Amino acid sequence: MNGFTFQCGTKMIFGRETELCVGEELRRQGASRVLFVYGGSSIKKSGLYDTVVKALEKAGLFFLELPGVVPNPRVSLVREGIEICRREKIDFLLAVGGGSVIDSCKAISFGVYYDGDVWDLISGKVRPGQERIPVGDILTLPAAGSEESDSCVISDETILVKAGFGSPLMRPVFSIMNPELTYTLPPYQTACGCMDIMAHAMERYFSPTPDVEMTDRVTEAILTTVIHNLPIALAEPENYAARAEIMLCGTWAQNDMTGCGRIQDWFNHGLEHQISGFYDIAHGAGLAISFPAWMEYLCEKKECVPKLAQYAVRVWNAEMNFEDPARTAREGCKRLKNLIREAGLPLTLREAGVGNERFEEIADNMTDGGSRTCGSFYQMGREDIRKLLGRME
Amino acid sequence: MNGFTFQCGTKMIFGRETELCVGEELRRQGASRVLFVYGGSSIKKSGLYDTVVKALEKAGLFFLELPGVVPNPRVSLVREGIEICRREKIDFLLAVGGGSVIDSCKAISFGVYYDGDVWDLISGKVRPGQERIPVGDILTLPAAGSEESDSCVISDETILVKAGFGSPLMRPVFSIMNPELTYTLPPYQTACGCMDIMAHAMERYFSPTPDVEMTDRVTEAILTTVIHNLPIALAEPENYAARAEIMLCGTWAQNDMTGCGRIQDWFNHGLEHQISGFYDIAHGAGLAISFPAWMEYLCEKKECVPKLAQYAVRVWNAEMNFEDPARTAREGCKRLKNLIREAGLPLTLREAGVGNERFEEIADNMTDGGSRTCGSFYQMGREDIRKLLGRME
Repeated sequence: MNGFTFQCGTKMIFGRETELCVGEELRRQGASRVLFVYGGSSIKKSGLYDTVVKALEKAGLFFLELPGVVPNPRVSLVREGIEICRREKIDFLLAVGGGSVIDSCKAISFGVYYDGDVWDLISGKVRPGQERIPVGDILTLPAAGSEESDSCVISDETILVKAGFGSPLMRPVFSIMNPELTYTLPPYQTACGCMDIMAHAMERYFSPTPDVEMTDRVTEAILTTVIHNLPIALAEPENYAARAEIMLCGTWAQNDMTGCGRIQDWFNHGLEHQISGFYDIAHGAGLAISFPAWMEYLCEKKECVPKLAQYAVRVWNAEMNFEDPARTAREGCKRLKNLIREAGLPLTLREAGVGNERFEEIADNMTDGGSRTCGSFYQMGREDIRKLLGRME
Repeated sequence: MNGFTFQCGTKMIFGRETELCVGEELRRQGASRVLFVYGGSSIKKSGLYDTVVKALEKAGLFFLELPGVVPNPRVSLVREGIEICRREKIDFLLAVGGGSVIDSCKAISFGVYYDGDVWDLISGKVRPGQERIPVGDILTLPAAGSEESDSCVISDETILVKAGFGSPLMRPVFSIMNPELTYTLPPYQTACGCMDIMAHAMERYFSPTPDVEMTDRVTEAILTTVIHNLPIALAEPENYAARAEIMLCGTWAQNDMTGCGRIQDWFNHGLEHQISGFYDIAHGAGLAISFPAWMEYLCEKKECVPKLAQYAVRVWNAEMNFEDPARTAREGCKRLKNLIREAGLPLTLREAGVGNERFEEIADNMTDGGSRTCGSFYQMGREDIRKLLGRME
C-alpha cells in the first residue's frame, strides 16, 4: 500500500423524497443567489423540475436557470454559465441531473474565478486556484460518480477534444440522492450507467501496487453489488432496493476511497475518451466494448494473470484453476461479456457504429506517436493499442 | 435500505513518516495555539513525542501539553483540559495516541463552549452546540476508530459510569496515520484493537434492516481483511502491509460508512461498557468474550439464522449447509472463537478475572429493570442477558 491523502466531505442525503429538502439544504449551506443547471426535458417530464422550483421559491432563494447541458458536456455552455455567475453574482451552483450537469457546474465553479478562458483550466494549461463557487446536486443518473468526485470532464465541440481537470475543492458540498428519481431511466441508460460504475471500480482495481487487500475487497464489494442489481433494475425499473444499491455503488466507486494507496490505471477511460471524441457513442457503451477486450488481451500477459484470476474468482465466482490460472482469468472476461450482452450493450465497435478509419490516429494520440505507453497495470504501447482496437472491431 | 445522511470530511494523511508533517498541517488548518494531548510514556519511549515537539516548534506554533490520558479516559482530565483551553485561549487540540486520547480531546473540544459541567454533555443531559475547538490527531493504535468517528466515550471514575456523546462536528479535521507507529504495540493490544475493529463492523452488520447489500459486502471486506492480517501482525510486528491494512480497517469500520441506511445494533458495546464500568478489563477483551457468545445465543433464534449464516459463509468461508443453515451459522461462531483464542484473547469472563456477582445488576441496568429490551438485530430482554452472561462465565 502506498501513502496517500484522502478527504471527501460531501454531505450525502440519501433516500426517498430527499429532493424536497433542497431549498432548506441550500439555505443551510449559506446560498442566496443560485444558478439552477440542468439538461433537457427529462426533469420537466418527470416533475422534478417543478419540485425544485417550488423548493427554491419556498426557501426564498433568488435563482436563475441554465438548461441545455448535453451528454459529453460542452465548454460553450460552461462559458455561458461563467458569464451568468459573474453578471448575476451567483453564490451557489445547483446541478440537477447526471454527471454531465454536475461536471458542467464544476467547470463553471472554478472558471468564474479564472481571468482567462476556462479551457485553460480544463485542458490542464493552468492549474485551478483556491477559489470556487460551491456546487450541490440532485442526482438523477448513477454513473459518472461526479456527485462526490473531485474532477470533471468537458468537451470542446469545435475541436473534438474531451479533457478533464480536478481539485480537492471540486467535490460537491452536498448530493441529494433519491433512487426513485432513477425509475424512469431507459434500460439502455441504466445499463450504460452501471458499466461506467464498474469501469470506475476496475480502473482502480487493476493496479500494479501490491498489498492493497482492503481496497481490493471493497472494490469487489462494489462490483458484485452492481452485477447482482443491474439485471434486477432492468427487469423491474421501480425496484427501490436495486436502484438504491446501484446509486450508492456509483458514488463509492468514484469518490476515490477505493483508489487510496495505489497507482490507478485509467487506460480504458483514456481509450473511450478518444473514441467518443471522434464518434457519437455513449460513454458506458464505449467502456462495455473496451474493458472486456482489454482484459482478454491481458490474460495473455503472464504478469497480469494473478490479479485477473483474483477478479474472476472473487467478483464472478469463477472456479480457481490452480494449474492454469489464465483459464480462470479468461472465465472472468467471459462472464463480464455475458453481463454486458444481457444488459443490451454492445461488445464490438461495429455494433456501436464505429469504423476502423481512426485506429492509427487513436493509437498515435494515446502514445504520442509511439513515444510513450498508456496505463499502469499493463503499459500499453502503440502496437498493443492497435492490436486491441483490431479485436474490438 | 433506509434513508440516511452521511458526511465525513476528515482528511486522512496515511503512510510512512506522515507524522513529520503535523506542524505544517496544523498551520494549514489555521491553528496557532495548540494543546498537545497524550497518554503516558509510550510516545516518549518510541520517540514520537520528540518528533511532534520538533514539528510544532519548527512550524512556530505555541503549544502546551496535557499528558496523562488513561484507557477508559476520565472526565477529570477532560475538565482539566477545558480549563487550560479557556485560560490559554487554545484554538486547536492535537491528540497523539489511540481512541482514549482522541475521545478526551473531543470531549474537551465541546466542553470549552458549554457553560455547565462537561458531564452534562457526556451523559446526554444537554445536547452539544454548534461550536467546538477543532481536533486533529496522530493515531498510534488502530482500534476505536475515533480518528474519523463523530462520537466519544468518557468515564466518570468516581461513579463507575461510562457514557458517550456525539455530534456531526465531532469528527477530527485531520488524522495522521503511519502504520509504522504501531510496530511497537504489544501483541495483546494489537489483538484487542482488532477485536474492537471487528466489533464495530459487526455491530452494524447484524441489523434488522433488509436490502443492505453493498454496505454488508463492504463490512465483509473489512472483516475478512482484519481476519487475514491480525495473525500476520502478531507473528511479524513490523510487517508494514499487515499493519497498514489493519489501520485502514479500523477507520472505515467506525466512520459509519458501513452503517449508512440501516438500523445498527450495539448490544455488545452496551454490555461491554457495563462490564468495564465495574471491572478493569480491556475493551477489546470484553468484546472478545461477549460477541461470540451473543452470536451463538442467536444461532438458536430462527429469525437470526439467515444473516448469521451469510456471515459464516462470506466472512469465514464456511460451507453453506442448505438443509440446516444454523449449523453453518454456528461454524461462523466457532471460527471467530478460534481466531480470538489464537490471538491470545479471553473467551470467558473467568479468564478475564470477572466474577458473576454483578450479573443481575448488569441485566437490570441494560433493560431498566426488565422494562425494555436492548439491541435491534435481536431484542435482548433481561432474561436473555442473564442467560448470555451465564454462558460467558
